[in-house]
Amino acid sequence: MAHIDLGVDESRSPGIQGLLQYRPETAKPLMELAEVLLRGPHTLSPGERELIAAYVSGLNECTYCAGSHSAFAAAQLPEGARLVEEVRANPATAALSGKMRALLAVAEAVRRDGRDVTTELVTAARTEGATDLEIHDTVLIAAAFSMFNRYVDGLATLAPDDPAAYQHGVHRIVTSGYLSRPAG
Amino acid sequence: MAHIDLGVDESRSPGIQGLLQYRPETAKPLMELAEVLLRGPHTLSPGERELIAAYVSGLNECTYCAGSHSAFAAAQLPEGARLVEEVRANPATAALSGKMRALLAVAEAVRRDGRDVTTELVTAARTEGATDLEIHDTVLIAAAFSMFNRYVDGLATLAPDDPAAYQHGVHRIVTSGYLSRPAG
Repeated sequence: MAHIDLGVDESRSPGIQGLLQYRPETAKPLMELAEVLLRGPHTLSPGERELIAAYVSGLNECTYCAGSHSAFAAAQLPEGARLVEEVRANPATAALSGKMRALLAVAEAVRRDGRDVTTELVTAARTEGATDLEIHDTVLIAAAFSMFNRYVDGLATLAPDDPAAYQHGVHRIVTSGYLSRPAG
Repeated sequence: MAHIDLGVDESRSPGIQGLLQYRPETAKPLMELAEVLLRGPHTLSPGERELIAAYVSGLNECTYCAGSHSAFAAAQLPEGARLVEEVRANPATAALSGKMRALLAVAEAVRRDGRDVTTELVTAARTEGATDLEIHDTVLIAAAFSMFNRYVDGLATLAPDDPAAYQHGVHRIVTSGYLSRPAG
């Protein structure tokens, strides 16, 4: 049960869902940020950007965010759930492009501490073909999930154990995005 | 110099300023989030909320964010810069209300890891009079600065050493808020 009374049935609105309903004033910019970062026009596909979100959330051991964004990444990557599992286990051995591997290394540094993003990590990403915008957005996605993970776990919201529970929101996010309203 | 070419004179647009100009699509929800969290209608004053932001940014050793939000807090708290310095040195001995002290303890836990926010910390805040909304927003402010700090430092933006440099934005933020545009 969450630390505060969210006024919702948490079993139907787990994780961030109950928080978004509790405080619509903050929900609006939070979901607009997720929509721009993960689904806006970009040279990285939505699946690649969801993979960064799932990877960071997994490292932060945020069960709800890792479960959700792994499902969203798997649904939008040609390689599906297998690649998401490989990346979450070890990006160094996952079947990734050199660019995605280098961007995930940047994300991993951001998750620890922004100051851990070295010139070497950025140069490596650029050498693999990453653009400035891709580097910028990778840093901001990793930073944003450093927020979302703390928000969801800091208020002790419900995180279903069953991986199947995270399939529930996939169709809505993939077809309508983060600004759409969950079915009541 | 920042890790990527922001297309701005960083000495005039240090820290997050250059990032906001570089990527207006993400700047919009980021500044809307800051405005709602730090300046929207609330039972915690803007000065008290800026104090939480300054404290978290100081613990994360983010020079730019700690300098800016310390200045914004000092300008809006009746106790001024002295209280901000006391809190950043040690909230346990600072001249704070019991409620603010308990909320800062919640923020400190969120900064480390969302899962560190225990029922005991939340109960202590409630015993000191904190409402659910105050607890919610304290968690989200601490989480949001876990993002802003990583964003600003992850891209290696300029952070002036001179404390006077952080006075520059105070008048604009205090009178017009985060949705206003910095003078070119």
